[in-house]
Amino acid sequence: MKHSKYIYGFSAQNVDGSAALINLLGGKGANLAEMSSLNIPVPPGFTISTEVCNYFLKNNSFPPGFKESLFDSIAKIERILERRFGSTQTPLLFSVRSGARQSMPGMMETVLNVGLTSKTLFGLISQTKDERFVYDSYRRLIMMYSDVVMEKANNVNVGIREHLDSILIKRKKENNIINDADLSVDTLKGLCKIFTAEINNKLQSSFPDDPYEQLWGAIKAVFISWNGFRAKEYRKIENIPNDWGTAVTIQSMVFGNMGRDSATGVAFTRNPSSGHNHLYGEWLPNAQGEDVVAGIRTPYPINEDSKNALTIKKDTLELQFPNIYNNLLLIKDTLEKHYCDMQDIEFTIQEGVLWMLQTRSGKRNGHAAIKIGLDLYKEGLIDEEKLANRIAPSQIEEIMHPYFNPEKEKQANLLTVGLPAGPGCAIGRAVFNPERAQELSSEKEGVVLIREETSPEDIHGMHVSNAIITARGGMTSHAALVARGWGKCCVVGCNEIVIDYQAKQATINNVIINEGDWVAVNGSTGSIYNQKIDLIDMNLDKNQDFNDLFNVLINNQKIGVRANADTGSDAKKARAMGAKGIGLCRTEHMFFEPDRINEVRKMIVFRDNLKIRKNAIMNLLPLQKKDFYSILKAMSPHPVTIRLLDPPLHEFLPHDKKQVSQLAALTGVSNKKIEKNISQLYENNPMLGHRGCRLGISYPEITEMQATAILEAATQLAKEGVDSSPEIMVPLVGSVNEFNHQKEIIVECADRVELENRIKINYNVGTMIELPRACLVADKIAQSADFFSFGTNDLTQTTFGFSRDDVSTLLNSYIENGIISNDPFQSLDIMGVGKLIEIAVKKAREVNPNIKIGICGEHGGDPQSILFFKNNGFDYVSCSPFRVPIAILCASKNK
Amino acid sequence: MKHSKYIYGFSAQNVDGSAALINLLGGKGANLAEMSSLNIPVPPGFTISTEVCNYFLKNNSFPPGFKESLFDSIAKIERILERRFGSTQTPLLFSVRSGARQSMPGMMETVLNVGLTSKTLFGLISQTKDERFVYDSYRRLIMMYSDVVMEKANNVNVGIREHLDSILIKRKKENNIINDADLSVDTLKGLCKIFTAEINNKLQSSFPDDPYEQLWGAIKAVFISWNGFRAKEYRKIENIPNDWGTAVTIQSMVFGNMGRDSATGVAFTRNPSSGHNHLYGEWLPNAQGEDVVAGIRTPYPINEDSKNALTIKKDTLELQFPNIYNNLLLIKDTLEKHYCDMQDIEFTIQEGVLWMLQTRSGKRNGHAAIKIGLDLYKEGLIDEEKLANRIAPSQIEEIMHPYFNPEKEKQANLLTVGLPAGPGCAIGRAVFNPERAQELSSEKEGVVLIREETSPEDIHGMHVSNAIITARGGMTSHAALVARGWGKCCVVGCNEIVIDYQAKQATINNVIINEGDWVAVNGSTGSIYNQKIDLIDMNLDKNQDFNDLFNVLINNQKIGVRANADTGSDAKKARAMGAKGIGLCRTEHMFFEPDRINEVRKMIVFRDNLKIRKNAIMNLLPLQKKDFYSILKAMSPHPVTIRLLDPPLHEFLPHDKKQVSQLAALTGVSNKKIEKNISQLYENNPMLGHRGCRLGISYPEITEMQATAILEAATQLAKEGVDSSPEIMVPLVGSVNEFNHQKEIIVECADRVELENRIKINYNVGTMIELPRACLVADKIAQSADFFSFGTNDLTQTTFGFSRDDVSTLLNSYIENGIISNDPFQSLDIMGVGKLIEIAVKKAREVNPNIKIGICGEHGGDPQSILFFKNNGFDYVSCSPFRVPIAILCASKNK
Repeated sequence: MKHSKYIYGFSAQNVDGSAALINLLGGKGANLAEMSSLNIPVPPGFTISTEVCNYFLKNNSFPPGFKESLFDSIAKIERILERRFGSTQTPLLFSVRSGARQSMPGMMETVLNVGLTSKTLFGLISQTKDERFVYDSYRRLIMMYSDVVMEKANNVNVGIREHLDSILIKRKKENNIINDADLSVDTLKGLCKIFTAEINNKLQSSFPDDPYEQLWGAIKAVFISWNGFRAKEYRKIENIPNDWGTAVTIQSMVFGNMGRDSATGVAFTRNPSSGHNHLYGEWLPNAQGEDVVAGIRTPYPINEDSKNALTIKKDTLELQFPNIYNNLLLIKDTLEKHYCDMQDIEFTIQEGVLWMLQTRSGKRNGHAAIKIGLDLYKEGLIDEEKLANRIAPSQIEEIMHPYFNPEKEKQANLLTVGLPAGPGCAIGRAVFNPERAQELSSEKEGVVLIREETSPEDIHGMHVSNAIITARGGMTSHAALVARGWGKCCVVGCNEIVIDYQAKQATINNVIINEGDWVAVNGSTGSIYNQKIDLIDMNLDKNQDFNDLFNVLINNQKIGVRANADTGSDAKKARAMGAKGIGLCRTEHMFFEPDRINEVRKMIVFRDNLKIRKNAIMNLLPLQKKDFYSILKAMSPHPVTIRLLDPPLHEFLPHDKKQVSQLAALTGVSNKKIEKNISQLYENNPMLGHRGCRLGISYPEITEMQATAILEAATQLAKEGVDSSPEIMVPLVGSVNEFNHQKEIIVECADRVELENRIKINYNVGTMIELPRACLVADKIAQSADFFSFGTNDLTQTTFGFSRDDVSTLLNSYIENGIISNDPFQSLDIMGVGKLIEIAVKKAREVNPNIKIGICGEHGGDPQSILFFKNNGFDYVSCSPFRVPIAILCASKNK
Repeated sequence: MKHSKYIYGFSAQNVDGSAALINLLGGKGANLAEMSSLNIPVPPGFTISTEVCNYFLKNNSFPPGFKESLFDSIAKIERILERRFGSTQTPLLFSVRSGARQSMPGMMETVLNVGLTSKTLFGLISQTKDERFVYDSYRRLIMMYSDVVMEKANNVNVGIREHLDSILIKRKKENNIINDADLSVDTLKGLCKIFTAEINNKLQSSFPDDPYEQLWGAIKAVFISWNGFRAKEYRKIENIPNDWGTAVTIQSMVFGNMGRDSATGVAFTRNPSSGHNHLYGEWLPNAQGEDVVAGIRTPYPINEDSKNALTIKKDTLELQFPNIYNNLLLIKDTLEKHYCDMQDIEFTIQEGVLWMLQTRSGKRNGHAAIKIGLDLYKEGLIDEEKLANRIAPSQIEEIMHPYFNPEKEKQANLLTVGLPAGPGCAIGRAVFNPERAQELSSEKEGVVLIREETSPEDIHGMHVSNAIITARGGMTSHAALVARGWGKCCVVGCNEIVIDYQAKQATINNVIINEGDWVAVNGSTGSIYNQKIDLIDMNLDKNQDFNDLFNVLINNQKIGVRANADTGSDAKKARAMGAKGIGLCRTEHMFFEPDRINEVRKMIVFRDNLKIRKNAIMNLLPLQKKDFYSILKAMSPHPVTIRLLDPPLHEFLPHDKKQVSQLAALTGVSNKKIEKNISQLYENNPMLGHRGCRLGISYPEITEMQATAILEAATQLAKEGVDSSPEIMVPLVGSVNEFNHQKEIIVECADRVELENRIKINYNVGTMIELPRACLVADKIAQSADFFSFGTNDLTQTTFGFSRDDVSTLLNSYIENGIISNDPFQSLDIMGVGKLIEIAVKKAREVNPNIKIGICGEHGGDPQSILFFKNNGFDYVSCSPFRVPIAILCASKNK
């Protein structure tokens, strides 16, 4: 272990930790320490570091000396509170909670009321004079402990929680009770007795009646839950390393369930959906925290601002506990000024006294993230760089989600309205369980997952769904939190939905939805429809916050951002999104259009006849010149990188007999000969075949035609007084000789066009670096290239030896089995492909310090990858127009 | 220029140069200097360095001060010989010859008799009293100069040489003369006049009558000939860099054509075909050197040992000039002791005085190379390392050439017998010109090139032919020299062959051979047949020299040599060839055999049913165990690297309807479902698809079965007291997790087999490094791998992005166009693929210094590549059994 200190205490008297120690203490522990230092009321406690967790998980034992530290820490709390853990007179109870470096809501375990035994409970009764509260706390401990420690941590699977729940429900029914709070003392006593008996029966093991046994069991259970299925799934999705481990925070219990002057609640210091600057939260009187978070009881609004359709008539904390509410407002200010960010807080009121149990940076949706970020920036709490760092790329992605066509939505069958918990709109086929969601999501249309409520077990199904609907739960329920985190469309608390999991159907106001039926979800209004509705792009132009944000970011970029666009109209879109140039203009489509494909086919069929071949291809010159004119003009004066023809010729050939006959008629060549021609071009591995610059070398007239078209388009623009900057890109180069061969043709064309028009053209010639060999000989190529653009898609294919078309299923199974951690086609493989890129950049810059270096693969829009390119001194990234704002955001971050 | 010295003189009085300056002086100049130092009679002269050549070719002018140096050098010769260049009284004549660092026979130009003009010739006549000789020399100068300097160096193309030749032939006919030596003075005078007139006429330029103009022209012409078509073609084939340049040696003329006591000759100091230790050569009385080399007159044998069927009755030099012959024997000894090698010498006898004009290391065939090498080694002139360095890999390849089945050859139609000029036997389709040879050679059967005689212009066609036949020329003719250098089958001097180039046919004793007819050639006996004859491998076991050589080499290897072999019998062959281990045992065939393929197909068809799938594959266990038993035993105790199944599964599936029906009947699955199954496995780019360890990860039972079979085979051998060393190789690994996944299975199997048999198995687990990513993360993989074996075939495919199946035509055109210099699948691409290998080896050895590193791609048998592997600290190379001797030779060289 790196640190010899295992445990960090916090109390009003003394604080060992701080927010800076988050890696050791986890978010929860670090922030409890921080709040204690800020003189915010926090029940005293201590945190066991993540290193102890890692030690425990590795050795299945605690490090030497740990036990003594634990006893010391407990003794300190006992002295402060003048109670004793395990005392039958003045018993002290603990909560035992997990806390990772990054929040993993609900993924790991918590045990409350630890220390309550058949003996200590009498002490608590005599202290509190509240027998019902004590037995309620005891039955909660038994239920939690048997589930979390005795079942899950021991990896047995008997469903003890569900079993005890069903006994509780049965007993409530027998007694005509709806709320747990109405259970009588005797009923609770009886339940405790039955529960312990059932535990003995089902788990072949007794509920421990020793406080220390309980405590050790709870600590171990939290550690073990770090490697639970749900936690591992979550980490995979969120890219959290497995070796971080969790801390355990052990804190003296305060009780929100001690009667009418007790309560519990959660709140955001600003609205996490709209970003408005007011406290936004929920509370429950006479309850413990788990009741709010689990979504079992629909909670009350904390103030007027927090009310929604379902809670409009409920009492607010502001009204019921005005002093405490004012205290909360003061704490909000203290925390926001201290953390310079919106906070997500938990509190408990025990007999009229406010205790803070947690603060952390609050999750928020994209709109809120932008608004809060901008507000904090305007308030002077954060600078431009922090503003960029605060906003997650997924939040920009989220607010760029498509929305329903408003006209169409008005006319659609509205089934019901729930709580708008996740942004944007989505459609998909209804599905009722997460496994099915995973299966069906691979089909093109996508799915909408409909559940009673969600739990961390459902994570995988939620992740693949276009939208999530739950029948129960509030805005801080599991489904809502997770969906917001992902920027995924989500509606919760749709009370009118009745689900029959067996029959795979849901009934909403007498309408039946079967698995596979179309469902449309508006996550911004909560509306749900049983049909498809046309989606349209959000009009970002009119989003003031979005535009304000990008006005700040665009002047703070650390790397340029271009877009991949193939036409003038795409180029315009890209420009509107903030792109300063085109990083990849593919030209394939300029050969495929109906009026052109025949010329291409003629060229291929007559490929042994240089004259016919050349004539055919030259017929495309005026057409492609128009194409290039349009795109260069749309992006003027920014550079446009145009890639010469790349795909293998057989892609252009007829695919069926009819087309063959047409081509035969057109060329006067027999069907048979054309078919032979086609079969001659067949390739076993076209990805590694006759494509890229290999085409331009075999058919130099293609390069000649394209280069001339580009250069003449630029010349025409120059004559019209429009500046343009074409960058002609030779694809799939593996050696400098290939590049020079093509460059020579291009330069000859340029000389000719310049001479004919007596205009100097502002053009560059460079290459796409997309083969391992190109990276390894980059110093040679860079001697004659003006620019490099890394084609990371192809580079990933050859570096891994993965054909993207063929190994996608394999890749998924590799990711699932932890053989690789990310899809390397989505996020750059920094260890392998990244290494090649580093080699190439270093070699290139050594011989040609001014060479312009960019990237135009799909990784150009991936945040992790952009960071890599930024750190390696790239001049720009280029991505699809839709991802340009995300790229600009990442380009503005300093990490 | 690096050196300020342009010119290096040599004479009995003073020598500037030496053999150590070969890079500056070329082979010829350096060795003339060396011979002068050894007091061997050499006509005085000087050599212009290769740096002057490079300067001239770059600037099209001579370096500053060069002219003065040249005049000084001429003046020195004039003082020694007491004659003057350009003098009308005592004229001095020069030969002007090329000389590269490495011999390029006949590829560059020579001009003799420079300095003879209409004025100086009278001086020569008065000195020699031989008017005929002087005019003969004059007409030779005119013919050579007009061709070499006036036509070729000026890049005009009027065929002056052929034109003058035809005039000469016509004049000989008119005068009923056969030999040039019989031309009368008057005829020669007349020819000189006509020649100069025709030159004026054809070349629009006069033959220069100024000695210095002749000299400058000749020097320039030699320089320019470095970049002539023939020279460039030759350098491409021989991998000679273009920037070496040629030296020019200017030497005072001595004359072999000064009458009966004059002569000229060439000789090898040992027999270049058999290696026997006697002078072996040819001579011509009253002739200049060009007459012997060009093969125009069939030369005489130098001694009895040099006689052959055609020259049996000719006079020997030994008889005609016994004193001079004895002098030659003394010089042979001096040279061999000095150079420690067999020499190829040229000499001229002028009026009874012997002059040496050249010495160089003599070309020899494989048999001779081995015998001479071994003899010199036994004589103590060279050590083991030099012995290895002296023998070219191609010479070993040559003597391993197949020979005709003797029975079949006896029964075949013998057409004619020529001189056995190149080793081994070959068959092919007849072809009569080099262009056609190139075209047809791409077809599988190969060609035999039949020519009147060959010239450097024919190089490209000779290179691609299986064998070469010429109607004229001796054992030192162009065809014979070139073929021997390449180790190519060749028969020369087949006087009975009459070729009609127009009709594309040859007539031999009334038998007509048309283009495309089968021809069989025995290059060791000179026999030619008009049919195919079965070829069989040479019985190297009985070749004493071969075995003696390898007994020396095998104890002097600098890198291990293994063989690639898939069966026990192949392993035995490899062992006999000297392999110490198997570097690659492919296991594909162990799945394809008729009694096995159905189990494999069953596994694939039922791939969704783990139980059936596993049962099917486990049925192969006893069969594969036998396979591995056999191969491990054959190679005991040396290691055998066994590669787990590699090819994609679809390769094992039925290819036609009939096979599908059979499989349907066998499995009870419908044809339709099987066809669907097959189509599901289709891949766009199988090379980058579901293969290698990806199979073993998806179907762990394959790995389990193979590992168990290997380990059980080793266990059985151990029980029988036979040591074995299986190395289990996981293919196509790109990340350490893939490797570990497979290693875990293998180690589990080993633990089980060891436990069952209570025998410790001596096994290793390693991986094939054949993906760029594997090289880049080699440090990770090396932490758990026992060995790396580089699969350079696949590594070349992915590094270049070349599918070997698809781009072979493209590759050839790339090589022809100079875009790449070698086929990277034959000789390792050191700049690209080699760089990746260097990275991988460095990374691997850093974390695991003891990791065993080998290579099992085809490059393991390529001399250039072996050098690279040796220099990079590889433990071994592995190649096909047939190339093992070549690899051992390369492994023994120190460069």
